[in-house]
Amino acid sequence: MREISVLDAATLRLRARKGLYTQPTAGQAPGALQTNLVAVPQRYAFDFLLFVQRNAKALPLVEVLEAGRYESQLAPGSDVRTDVPRYWVYRNGMRVEEVLDAREVWREDLVTFLIGCSFTFEAAMMRAGLPVRHIEEGRNVPMYRTHRPASPAGVFSGPLVVTMRPVPLPLVSQTVTLTARYPLAHGAPIHIGAPEELGIRDLNRPDYGEAVTVRNGEVPVFWACGVTAQAALEASGIELAITHAPGHMFLTDVSDESANLAVF
Amino acid sequence: MREISVLDAATLRLRARKGLYTQPTAGQAPGALQTNLVAVPQRYAFDFLLFVQRNAKALPLVEVLEAGRYESQLAPGSDVRTDVPRYWVYRNGMRVEEVLDAREVWREDLVTFLIGCSFTFEAAMMRAGLPVRHIEEGRNVPMYRTHRPASPAGVFSGPLVVTMRPVPLPLVSQTVTLTARYPLAHGAPIHIGAPEELGIRDLNRPDYGEAVTVRNGEVPVFWACGVTAQAALEASGIELAITHAPGHMFLTDVSDESANLAVF
Repeated sequence: MREISVLDAATLRLRARKGLYTQPTAGQAPGALQTNLVAVPQRYAFDFLLFVQRNAKALPLVEVLEAGRYESQLAPGSDVRTDVPRYWVYRNGMRVEEVLDAREVWREDLVTFLIGCSFTFEAAMMRAGLPVRHIEEGRNVPMYRTHRPASPAGVFSGPLVVTMRPVPLPLVSQTVTLTARYPLAHGAPIHIGAPEELGIRDLNRPDYGEAVTVRNGEVPVFWACGVTAQAALEASGIELAITHAPGHMFLTDVSDESANLAVF
Repeated sequence: MREISVLDAATLRLRARKGLYTQPTAGQAPGALQTNLVAVPQRYAFDFLLFVQRNAKALPLVEVLEAGRYESQLAPGSDVRTDVPRYWVYRNGMRVEEVLDAREVWREDLVTFLIGCSFTFEAAMMRAGLPVRHIEEGRNVPMYRTHRPASPAGVFSGPLVVTMRPVPLPLVSQTVTLTARYPLAHGAPIHIGAPEELGIRDLNRPDYGEAVTVRNGEVPVFWACGVTAQAALEASGIELAITHAPGHMFLTDVSDESANLAVF
């Protein structure tokens, strides 16, 4: 278990920029909207935006920064190339590198997508007395590739990826209704109780992140996850993509209540 | 006042395909999801999809048909080039033509966007005893360009366009809560009561559609409108765009209850 003090979003971004914060961001900046980051070359931007649209449960779009833009409107003073704790770099669909500063690999034609993350609703879960096991245990959230396909678009296709949080049976209903209020954080779970129905063989061996304890009387609850994008980038084989490392998110300054507001 | 019998969506599409149905579609296929149609060349598809994303209240995206695709997944057997009662053709930002069959002007590189329409919630309004004046009076819905700018994206920018329905004061709250349940049909109104606050000078002179009667004791209620796309196409000056004629929508076979489901 790691001991990490709780930072606000702007402080965490600055520390990440200096290479001083390199851990997962669950539990940080409670109540701030946290996002996945995906940057792809302009020529793939339409396909990726359409992929995002067609998989809005896994990839709820928060913001798009056109090529040459680095500052999120939701985080004044930010730079998406430096303010994420860890980045993954994909070349030809293969993850070739993990970097703390993405400027060394950035390209001027990259379009950046910020996509909501379930960490956003964890502060609300904790306020409601619901358990968030990976925060309790100081681990990264466990993430699993499922056998459910995402809806393809252009060059992008792949499996739906999910996060898992164990929930005591008497609290499952409340967990569903609470998280459903946060559509930009993936909203309600997509499955409750049977990992094998999603094609997950062993909860102790997540595909990304770290395993957490599931106690007696608890069921695994699964939410759609933005790492669905990474899985599609791998399958696409496009020449370059830069993403956050799973669990190491871009933090905005806006409240989780924004993730609660539908744009509608 | 026109007398028109009420058709189901598939029948209306077929009659439109044959050039036999050329009227506005409000009141038709009650309970079916109705959509705006916008087709733009592939090279503008990313900009337009981003414009749609950034203006989701006016432009709630229902489906994208990639270049070369004409059949909506929400309307088996449909052809988006023929099944809309009337099409507008834009060249270099100018509306140059209205056609009943768009095949004569279609291009293989056009990407088609289907975008939710407020006609979708009118059946629910009527079931609830709320007035829908343009249907009562057999007119096209009145639409107005406002002085509120849409959020720009790439080559696309322009004013927010709204529809207006007069509502008796005691029914306004119910009208808001009912329509809010239909996010893919623009959801809740964006303004109630004061046209001048939107920059609308004269309710009797709509920019698109036809004026309707506002009775004593009624207030004008305004919803964001998909014709925001047409206004942006005009401003963009792109070489070609094909859209439905305002009020003459593409009808899907799916229920308005689908427009009630968030994807989230």
